[in-house]
Amino acid sequence: MKIEVFKRLQAGNDAEADEVRRLLAPHGITLINIMGSPGSGKTTLLEATLKSLGRAPSPLRCAVLEGDLATIQDAERIADLNVPVAQLLTEGGCHLTAGLVHHALSAKDAFDLDALDCVFVENVGNLVCPANFDLGEHARVVVLSVAEGDDKITKYPHTFRAAGNGSAVVLSKLDLLPQCRFDLERARRDLSAINPQAALFEVGAIDGTGVEAWAQWVREVGANSSETDSPPAPT
Amino acid sequence: MKIEVFKRLQAGNDAEADEVRRLLAPHGITLINIMGSPGSGKTTLLEATLKSLGRAPSPLRCAVLEGDLATIQDAERIADLNVPVAQLLTEGGCHLTAGLVHHALSAKDAFDLDALDCVFVENVGNLVCPANFDLGEHARVVVLSVAEGDDKITKYPHTFRAAGNGSAVVLSKLDLLPQCRFDLERARRDLSAINPQAALFEVGAIDGTGVEAWAQWVREVGANSSETDSPPAPT
Repeated sequence: MKIEVFKRLQAGNDAEADEVRRLLAPHGITLINIMGSPGSGKTTLLEATLKSLGRAPSPLRCAVLEGDLATIQDAERIADLNVPVAQLLTEGGCHLTAGLVHHALSAKDAFDLDALDCVFVENVGNLVCPANFDLGEHARVVVLSVAEGDDKITKYPHTFRAAGNGSAVVLSKLDLLPQCRFDLERARRDLSAINPQAALFEVGAIDGTGVEAWAQWVREVGANSSETDSPPAPT
Repeated sequence: MKIEVFKRLQAGNDAEADEVRRLLAPHGITLINIMGSPGSGKTTLLEATLKSLGRAPSPLRCAVLEGDLATIQDAERIADLNVPVAQLLTEGGCHLTAGLVHHALSAKDAFDLDALDCVFVENVGNLVCPANFDLGEHARVVVLSVAEGDDKITKYPHTFRAAGNGSAVVLSKLDLLPQCRFDLERARRDLSAINPQAALFEVGAIDGTGVEAWAQWVREVGANSSETDSPPAPT
C-alpha cells in the first residue's frame, strides 16, 4: 500500500513533466534544471551565465525559475539583472516538482514564452532529493563547489549519475581551490567512472574562469533541443 | 489517505526515537545529532572534536554513527582515530531514521554502551530533510560552512529552528572567511532572530580555531543530559 502511494505521486510528477515539455516545445524553449547543495554556487553561476548569454552578437533570451523553501532572495538577485524570473516556494519541501514548474510557466502574464529561448530552473539546495524528480528539462546540471570536498561524487552517486547523458557537472568556486582539500584529478576520475557521458566544467563564476566554455555548452544544448523538439521555422 | 501514510511513518520514527532514549539512559550516554549540507565540514569537525574530547585529564569516551547514502569513507576517517564507529547506509535515502540508529546501537557486539559517555550521529549531508526526524538525541547541531554563504540561515529556517533549545550551530571553515562573501554579523543576527536559544560557535577545525569552546559545550550537554536521564550512581 505504501509503495502504491509513492508510485502514484511519482507518476503524477512524470505526467506533469510531460506537460512542461508539451508547453515549451512549440516555442522552441530549452529548459535546464540546475541542482546542487546549499551554497554550492548555483545562483552566482546563473548570474555569470546570464550575463554571458545575454551578450551581443547573438544574445540568448533567458528566464529563470528560482526554487527555495522560504525566501525570494535568489529571485531578487536575478531580477537585478533584468532577466524575467519567478520564485517557486516549496514551503519547506526538499525539491521542486514538475507541477510547480508547469504552473509557473503557464500562469497568465508571468512569462512571454514567444520571447524566450532558454529557461533555467534553480532547484532547492539539496544534493539528494531533487534528482528523483523530472521537471521536463532538456538538460540536468549538478553544481559542486570545490569547498564541499572531492569525495562528494562518490558519496552522492545517484545525483551525479542522474546528471545523465548530455548533461553536465560544474565544479564551482574554483578560486577557493588553493585553500581547499580538493583533488581535481580525483573528481574528474570519479565522475568519468560514475557518469562518463556528463560534460565537466571547472568554473570560477566571480572572476569569470571557465564561464564562456560552460555558456557555450548551454547554447549547444539549446540548439540540439530545438532541432529535436520543433520543426524548423518557415522561411 | 496519503496523509495517513506519512503520519504513520513519522509516528514510527518517533516511537523508535523513544526506544533510543530508553536504550541509552541507563548508561548515561549523551546522543548528539549533527546535521548540515554536503561538504559543510561535519566529519572534519568531528575529527577535531574527538581529538579534543579524548584528551587528559578528563577524556570523554565517544563513539560515532556515520550516515551516508552509499560509502564508508567517513567511517574510515573516524576509525583512523581509534574511535568506535559504525556506518549507517541509507542506500540513497535523504536522512537517517531513529530505527537505523537504534538498530546500530543495540546490535550485538557493535558497541560497549557501558564504556561510552557520548555518541555522535553524523546525519546524511542535507540541510532540509534530516531536521524532520528525531533520532532520540539530547542535542541537535547544525554545521554551516562559511563557503556556503551568509544567506543560508534565512533560506533554510526550518533546520536552523530545529537546532532548538539547548542546541547549537557551528559556523565552520572559518579559515576560508577572507576568501568568501560571508558577513558574520548577518549570520549572528539571522540566527538570533530565528532561534535565539541556539549556541553559536565559529570554528576552523583544521587550524583548531574555536574547537575548545565548542568541545566544552559538548561536555556541558553531556553533564546536563546525564543529570536528567539517570539517577546518580550509587556511592
